[in-house]
Amino acid sequence: MSSDFQVPPLTELRQRLSAKWQTFPHDVLPLPVAEMDFPLAEPVAAALHQAIRRSDTGYAAPTADLAEAVAGYARRTWDWSVDPDGVHTVADVGIGIVETLRRIVAPGDKVVISPPVYEPFSWWVHEVGAHVVEAPLTEAPSGDSTARGPRLDLTALERAFADGARAYLLCSPHNPLGLVHPREDLVALAELADEHGVFVLADEIHAPLVLTGAQFVPFLSVSQEARRRGFSFLSASKGWNLAGLKAAAIITADPAPKRYVERMSPHRLYRTGHLGVIATVAAFNDADAWLAEVLDVLDHNRTLLAELLDKNLPAARYTPPQASFLAWIDFRALGWGDDPAAHILGAAKVALNSGHRYGFPGFARLNFGCAPETLTEAVVRIAESC
Amino acid sequence: MSSDFQVPPLTELRQRLSAKWQTFPHDVLPLPVAEMDFPLAEPVAAALHQAIRRSDTGYAAPTADLAEAVAGYARRTWDWSVDPDGVHTVADVGIGIVETLRRIVAPGDKVVISPPVYEPFSWWVHEVGAHVVEAPLTEAPSGDSTARGPRLDLTALERAFADGARAYLLCSPHNPLGLVHPREDLVALAELADEHGVFVLADEIHAPLVLTGAQFVPFLSVSQEARRRGFSFLSASKGWNLAGLKAAAIITADPAPKRYVERMSPHRLYRTGHLGVIATVAAFNDADAWLAEVLDVLDHNRTLLAELLDKNLPAARYTPPQASFLAWIDFRALGWGDDPAAHILGAAKVALNSGHRYGFPGFARLNFGCAPETLTEAVVRIAESC
Repeated sequence: MSSDFQVPPLTELRQRLSAKWQTFPHDVLPLPVAEMDFPLAEPVAAALHQAIRRSDTGYAAPTADLAEAVAGYARRTWDWSVDPDGVHTVADVGIGIVETLRRIVAPGDKVVISPPVYEPFSWWVHEVGAHVVEAPLTEAPSGDSTARGPRLDLTALERAFADGARAYLLCSPHNPLGLVHPREDLVALAELADEHGVFVLADEIHAPLVLTGAQFVPFLSVSQEARRRGFSFLSASKGWNLAGLKAAAIITADPAPKRYVERMSPHRLYRTGHLGVIATVAAFNDADAWLAEVLDVLDHNRTLLAELLDKNLPAARYTPPQASFLAWIDFRALGWGDDPAAHILGAAKVALNSGHRYGFPGFARLNFGCAPETLTEAVVRIAESC
Repeated sequence: MSSDFQVPPLTELRQRLSAKWQTFPHDVLPLPVAEMDFPLAEPVAAALHQAIRRSDTGYAAPTADLAEAVAGYARRTWDWSVDPDGVHTVADVGIGIVETLRRIVAPGDKVVISPPVYEPFSWWVHEVGAHVVEAPLTEAPSGDSTARGPRLDLTALERAFADGARAYLLCSPHNPLGLVHPREDLVALAELADEHGVFVLADEIHAPLVLTGAQFVPFLSVSQEARRRGFSFLSASKGWNLAGLKAAAIITADPAPKRYVERMSPHRLYRTGHLGVIATVAAFNDADAWLAEVLDVLDHNRTLLAELLDKNLPAARYTPPQASFLAWIDFRALGWGDDPAAHILGAAKVALNSGHRYGFPGFARLNFGCAPETLTEAVVRIAESC
C-alpha cells in the first residue's frame, strides 16, 4: 500500500453514517454490507467537494458525460467498445434491473437465477410480480482437474429456458462467490438465450473489482446473440465505494433492448443522484490508479483470509474469490447451525451476512474490503469466542 | 439579503452540472427546472463536506436521524406533531408516490388529479397502470370578493370519488400555482375521501416554501379522517435545493396507511441517497435561518415579477403565488400560440416550462428562485425580443 492509501482507523470509520457502520453497536466489528473501508479516490473526493462548493445539488442533467466515461473505462480496461448512445443513466443496478424487468416480463412470467446469488435477485423478480426459477451453479465437471469450482450450469439453464422462462439474471462476476465466468460459458449462454427468446440481464457491478489472475469478459462483447438479447448493468458503486450516491448505467448494444430502456419512465434520469453522476464520471475517468491500489489490497486480503482461516478455523472451507471483496465461507463443519452469522454475531461480535438468505444454510459472506488488521482481528475474535 | 447570502453570478452558475444549467446552451437564461440559484445553506454544505472527508459514501443507514429531523422541523414550523415511527425514508417524492400507488391501486383503477398540476402527476399514475381522472381546480365562487383565485373543486372531487376513484393526488401547496389550500378545503377533502374509501397522497414538497401571508396546513394534521386515508410526502429537496441528492420522507399517522409503506421493497432505504439523507437532516435541523433568507428573496421576487410584467408585458396575466419559486403566467393575450415557452426560447433565449404540458396551452411556468437581476433580465429580454 502506498503511503497516501491508509485505511482510516476504526475510531474514524465508526464516525461514518452509512449502513455498514450504523447498523450494529460500536462493539461489533462489521464485515457485512458491501461497502469498503478505504478512503475515497482523490479525484472523486475533489469532484464532490467542488460540486458542493458550486452548490451544484439540483437534478442530474441529460448530458453525455456519464455515457462517455463508461465507454472510456470499458475501452481502457476490457478493450470493450461501448457506444455512448447505448448507455442510459439510472439510479442503481437494482432499479435498472427492476425497471427493465417491468418492460420485458408480465406478472406470472418466469425469471431464472443461479443460486447462491446476491439475495436481492429474487426480491427484484418478486417486485415485478414474476416467478423465480432456480438454475443453481454447478460444481466443475468431474475429471476436469483444470476447471475451477462452481460455474454456470448450462444444462439447467437450457432446461429452464426451454420451459418458457422470459429472462435470466446473470451475475457477472458472480456474487457472493467472486466467480468470473469464462468466455465460453457466456457465449453458450447467449446462444441458448437467443434460441429460446430469453433476455439476459447482466449485473456487472463487480466487474471493476476483478483481481489478478482472472479476466472479466463483458457479456455484450461476446457475440451478436448476446447483444440482441442482453442488457448490462454497470456502476462505479462497488469499485469506488459509491453505493449511497445512486448512479449506474444500463448498457445496450442493439436496437431491440435499447427500445425497452427508452420506454422507461421519463423520470429515470431525475431519479438518479446528481452527485452520484459527478462521482461516477470522476471514478471512471480519473481513478484507475486508486482502483489499482484497492485491487492490490483485496488481492492481499483474499490470501490473508485463507491463511487466517487455515490457522484459526481450519474446519471452515473457503476458496479465494476471483473478484470483489466478498468471501463465501462454508462453516458447516463447525456445528454452528444453519445461521453461523447469527452465532458469530452473538459470540464474537463480528457481523457477517447470513448464507441461508442466499439459500445456503451453514454459509456466511464476509466483506474483506478493509484493513488487513481488521480482517485479522475478525477471524481471531471468531476463533476465540465461538 | 444579508451579505453572506449572495447569489453567484451567472458565469459561476453556468459551471453547475445540474439539469437547469446543462439542458440549454450558454446564451439561454434558464428559468425552468425546479432548482434555485442560491448558495447552499452553510450547515448543509458543511455536513456534505464532512461526509466526503469521512469517505462516507456507502448505503443510507436504517437510523432514526431523518425521521427525527422531519418531526422536529414539523413541530417548530407548523406545530404539527409527527411520530418519527411513521416517517419512512424514500429516494424522492415521485418514487414515494409511485411505490405507494403500486400498493393501493390495481392496473385500470382510477386516480384523481387537479389540473393544472405538476406534470409528473399523470406520468406517475400511468407508471402504475392506472387511469387519470381530472377534477380541475375551480375559480373562487362568484360573489365572494374575499376568496382568492382557484381552489380545490370539492364538487368535482366528490363526483370523481363517488364514481369509484381509488386515490387522489393532492398537491399542497399546489404547483404550478403556488396555491396554499385553506384548512376548510383539506378538512372537507378528508371527509369525502373517508366517506368514499379514497386514499389521499399529499405531495407537500413545497411546504417549507410558503411565503408571508399564507399558512401551510399539513394534510395529516387536519382530522382523524385525513390520517386514516392519508400519506404525506415531504422533502428538503425544494426548500433547500437538494433535488439531486435523492432523499425524502413518506409520513403516515395511522396504522392502515403505515402498513402499505412497510410492505414496500426492502430496498426502499438502500435506494435512497446517503448524502441526501445527511443533507436533509442538516437542512431540517440546522438551516431555518437560511430558509428565512430564501423566503425573503422569493417574497421580493414574486412582487418584482408582477411589477416587471406590468411594465414590460402588461398583457400577461399573473397572480403572485402564496408559496414556492414558481410563477404561473397566462400569455394568451399576447398571441404567442399554444406554447409561448417555445416562442420565448426561440426569440428571447429565455427558457420557461410549457403550460400545455400541464394541460394549459398559452401558459408558461417561470422559476424565480434566482437573483432579482436575473429575473429582471429575463422579463426585459422577453419583452424586447418577442
